[in-house]
Amino acid sequence: MQESKKAVILLSGGLDSATVLAIAKDRGFECHTMSFDYGQRHRAELHAAERLAQSMGARTHRVMNVDMRQIGGSALTDDSMAVPVGGVEKDTIPVTYVPARNTVFLSYALALAEVIGADDIFIGVNAVDYSGYPDCRPEFIEAYEKMANLATKAGVEGHHLSVQTPLIDLSKAEIIQTGHQLGVDYALTVSCYQADDQGRACGVCDSCRLRKQGFKEAGVEDPTLYQNGA
Amino acid sequence: MQESKKAVILLSGGLDSATVLAIAKDRGFECHTMSFDYGQRHRAELHAAERLAQSMGARTHRVMNVDMRQIGGSALTDDSMAVPVGGVEKDTIPVTYVPARNTVFLSYALALAEVIGADDIFIGVNAVDYSGYPDCRPEFIEAYEKMANLATKAGVEGHHLSVQTPLIDLSKAEIIQTGHQLGVDYALTVSCYQADDQGRACGVCDSCRLRKQGFKEAGVEDPTLYQNGA
Repeated sequence: MQESKKAVILLSGGLDSATVLAIAKDRGFECHTMSFDYGQRHRAELHAAERLAQSMGARTHRVMNVDMRQIGGSALTDDSMAVPVGGVEKDTIPVTYVPARNTVFLSYALALAEVIGADDIFIGVNAVDYSGYPDCRPEFIEAYEKMANLATKAGVEGHHLSVQTPLIDLSKAEIIQTGHQLGVDYALTVSCYQADDQGRACGVCDSCRLRKQGFKEAGVEDPTLYQNGA
Repeated sequence: MQESKKAVILLSGGLDSATVLAIAKDRGFECHTMSFDYGQRHRAELHAAERLAQSMGARTHRVMNVDMRQIGGSALTDDSMAVPVGGVEKDTIPVTYVPARNTVFLSYALALAEVIGADDIFIGVNAVDYSGYPDCRPEFIEAYEKMANLATKAGVEGHHLSVQTPLIDLSKAEIIQTGHQLGVDYALTVSCYQADDQGRACGVCDSCRLRKQGFKEAGVEDPTLYQNGA
């Protein structure tokens, strides 16, 4: 039996990264998932990631502790900043932006990739719905990949490390359709910025709105559990 | 009075990064230092970094907890691997290499730079004595800087983020001469891979050999405290 190629998958527990895991699995990779505990308010995401990794057959799952609170600067980690509920403004950077988040997360993924001998890192960035985040843009990913190949032993020894972004050009509806076809159980995922302990969504934050709208446009039944039946 | 420009300085507590802090200070930066607790054996370095930050007038100092043990793969973090004492081999990657270490560390520095509004990150990489580490090469630093400017809000808003490597082309002796002229107290620094709790060096590991040789070549008295008077 041929050995599967290994891949590191950044798995937040949200809808996007669950879809990415399904795609990587569908492409035949042995999947090693990685989540980040960076003091985020939406702790339910971390539990969701663990359940997803398990139910979708990841080979290993790690939760990395990342010290973002010591650095501060985002509504997602800083309690003194309010979470916005008024819709995503285009062409501005949302206050939910965590400084250099994807750069930090990808760097841990790179370290793991190097140690386990994976040539592929999958990340669910998306340039369509979240155009305000600089570290979700294709030009960022390209520059990251180039840097990563210079950073590592693997790069020096002639392996090519690839940062795969299968969702980058997809709308939320297309992401949902893709995952639906691959059998993703979206009831296990949490997107809400202020989900409760059971992972039930608020239904009103920007992330909930985008998600609701996505299911509607995809023509897929929305399995999300909402607080107060919202 | 004009406000000083801010810089983030990666400060390990070793000889090189102490010199970098002195250089940044000499160039007029308000210095924000950052150390990393990544489960390294040489814990004495972390204490040294704190003492250096304090005595050299850093504005803030942070110790970031980084989960390298969960990832493994290096003699510096993995107890089952021996620390080499037989001299640095050229053209091979030392087993003391920590996977993607500088990539991870620079990413935290980038996050902090973004939050405090610093346009400069200083790192004491050196391509001369440690040519085996891929993430100490100038081409890596260039690629990192390019990526960093695409990753961040600051980059989007037209600031240029610069990764400064003032030691990159210097020999150990030149580094020591530079720091000596700037008044660095090298007795406060720890380079040894297996320093004891008081920060005293073993005198025999590769890092100790390079350091000893450096003081000798620089014609500067070596203030290092050695175990057993070695």
